[in-house]
Amino acid sequence: MQSLSIALGERTYPIYIGPGLLSETALFEANLPAGALCIVTNETVAPLYLDTLRKTLAHRRVVECVLPDGEPHKNLTTLARVFDSLIAGRVHRDGAIIALGGGVVGDMAGFAAACYQRGIACAQIPTTLLSQVDSSVGGKTAVNHPQGKNLIGAFHQPCAVFADTKVLQTLPDREMSAGLAEVIKYGLIEDASFFAWLESAMPKLRAREERELVEAISRSCAIKAQIVAEDERETTGRRALLNLGHTFGHAIETAVDYQGWLHGEAVGVGLLLATDLSARLGLIDPSVIARVKSLLESAGLRTVSPRVAPEQLWELMQMDKKVSGGKLPLVLLNQLGDAQLRRDVDQELVLQTLRHYQP
Amino acid sequence: MQSLSIALGERTYPIYIGPGLLSETALFEANLPAGALCIVTNETVAPLYLDTLRKTLAHRRVVECVLPDGEPHKNLTTLARVFDSLIAGRVHRDGAIIALGGGVVGDMAGFAAACYQRGIACAQIPTTLLSQVDSSVGGKTAVNHPQGKNLIGAFHQPCAVFADTKVLQTLPDREMSAGLAEVIKYGLIEDASFFAWLESAMPKLRAREERELVEAISRSCAIKAQIVAEDERETTGRRALLNLGHTFGHAIETAVDYQGWLHGEAVGVGLLLATDLSARLGLIDPSVIARVKSLLESAGLRTVSPRVAPEQLWELMQMDKKVSGGKLPLVLLNQLGDAQLRRDVDQELVLQTLRHYQP
Repeated sequence: MQSLSIALGERTYPIYIGPGLLSETALFEANLPAGALCIVTNETVAPLYLDTLRKTLAHRRVVECVLPDGEPHKNLTTLARVFDSLIAGRVHRDGAIIALGGGVVGDMAGFAAACYQRGIACAQIPTTLLSQVDSSVGGKTAVNHPQGKNLIGAFHQPCAVFADTKVLQTLPDREMSAGLAEVIKYGLIEDASFFAWLESAMPKLRAREERELVEAISRSCAIKAQIVAEDERETTGRRALLNLGHTFGHAIETAVDYQGWLHGEAVGVGLLLATDLSARLGLIDPSVIARVKSLLESAGLRTVSPRVAPEQLWELMQMDKKVSGGKLPLVLLNQLGDAQLRRDVDQELVLQTLRHYQP
Repeated sequence: MQSLSIALGERTYPIYIGPGLLSETALFEANLPAGALCIVTNETVAPLYLDTLRKTLAHRRVVECVLPDGEPHKNLTTLARVFDSLIAGRVHRDGAIIALGGGVVGDMAGFAAACYQRGIACAQIPTTLLSQVDSSVGGKTAVNHPQGKNLIGAFHQPCAVFADTKVLQTLPDREMSAGLAEVIKYGLIEDASFFAWLESAMPKLRAREERELVEAISRSCAIKAQIVAEDERETTGRRALLNLGHTFGHAIETAVDYQGWLHGEAVGVGLLLATDLSARLGLIDPSVIARVKSLLESAGLRTVSPRVAPEQLWELMQMDKKVSGGKLPLVLLNQLGDAQLRRDVDQELVLQTLRHYQP
């Protein structure tokens, strides 16, 4: 087991990474508050892992809330079901929510914990690679509004994150690849040697070899932990670097109405588009584009946009919630392993990039 | 105009108190962020003051959200209407909500601001005495759940509070008295000389004389500001002192299903019950009971419980969300102007107090 800490003063918390954590009673005991617990999970994950977790927490008072699976349910209506469970289960301020699932479960459970009685503890047990390396770490929680993703939420740091790599063995290949997009992102924004390691380790990662999984997740979480510790609430621009590829990715997801594209797949193409645009601006050597494209392919990810007019994607990029003062901020690369936030990017250059990756 | 500051590090903010603030364009300008503004108000307050505020902010881009009036609407469904207005009005992270109304509007608008895009600024313009001295200050925001008040919320400090004493001229007498209950509370928990001042100033306060209003609100806010600055998130027990009378009061409100009793009226009786219980425990001289009863009467408040069995009130007190670890915490008086949180109060003594104030 690897462990690392995310340094946020009194909100500092540990991230544990390794196979079989779901059964480690002592580890949970050391990291959970004393009161009643509410496990929030979904209909897909519950049959796979809820019983294991129940046994691990057998000595505790535990209530359960099993939500429908999928992004369309990530809204205020479903959130109300979590509150109902917390109240019916008499969970008080000394209790905690345990999120057992992927990003949707983690975001909703975390937001419920942020709001219930003005904030109770939340432990995250992410069950997808994407949530293990990204959404479970850093305290961003939210639900969607019909007009946009994650528009209603809170910053609420978990009390602990338990990334059990064994659960990744049951993850569908496509979701595994989607998670790898975020892993690649960390190499691009912060660590060229990690990117190079991924170029060689990718086949073993896709084969779910434990050693490589623990390494990839630990290094990803360490980079995210460092950035979040420096800019918890995305005020200095540092944390915004984690959005590399995401403005493009969100536009793609919205354009296809979230049909047929996983978030990580859209982010993967977004990474390629951001790299291409960085080269067009003369920030990086064009040879980086080929390395990014090749790594995405070896991760089983797409490298071509959906069939949507570049002008429409440009319009959708303007809707991104990070737009303030009317200027579109974009994260770009200075070199492999070094990113920066720019607010001066010419529309025509963006359109050139968008056109280049049309199907 | 009086002004004071609530010292919370980077979340420090000013409270302005005086007649006619609603028209002070420069004061708003100095305290609001640059982006679009969303005024959240209700159907009762809008006809009285929305037009004045519109004129004050005439040079700014402003959207409006007029909610139905009353506690039954303080829920997730009504909250969603605020989010709809923010999104339709293209309010971004550089924008702000302005809450124009009493406690219900302030709590909902504040909670919407806490969650929208994970937190935007919120200015409070409380239009009742109760909200001017209590709910608009301190950052507690929430909506109700069918099973209990304020169960879903956040700590989200406002960017500024504008307490316009002129608006109190249109406040119904009964609501004026309800607000005075919280004013009396501040004297009881923290400042015996303020309590004594209230004993002489009460007739002028009920006649809405500006000088006395500004003095009462300023001293109340100063006490609350000090306590909140010392214990923003109610972790040390210091902030809990602000709940003097509230555990009794909430039980009364729940027992009568919020029918026929205003929050401040229930708190008023709660103050008397807490004082009586403090005397039964030998903490204070019994003569204080008569002074509290007399001041409540001169404020136009009730001094007798509703017709509910003491045992039922005791049960309802256990439901209070501050209960953790199974013990009922109660705020009691050591003397006039000095309160403490106790967790060891004997049930039989509480029942004696409850019986004594039966109708």
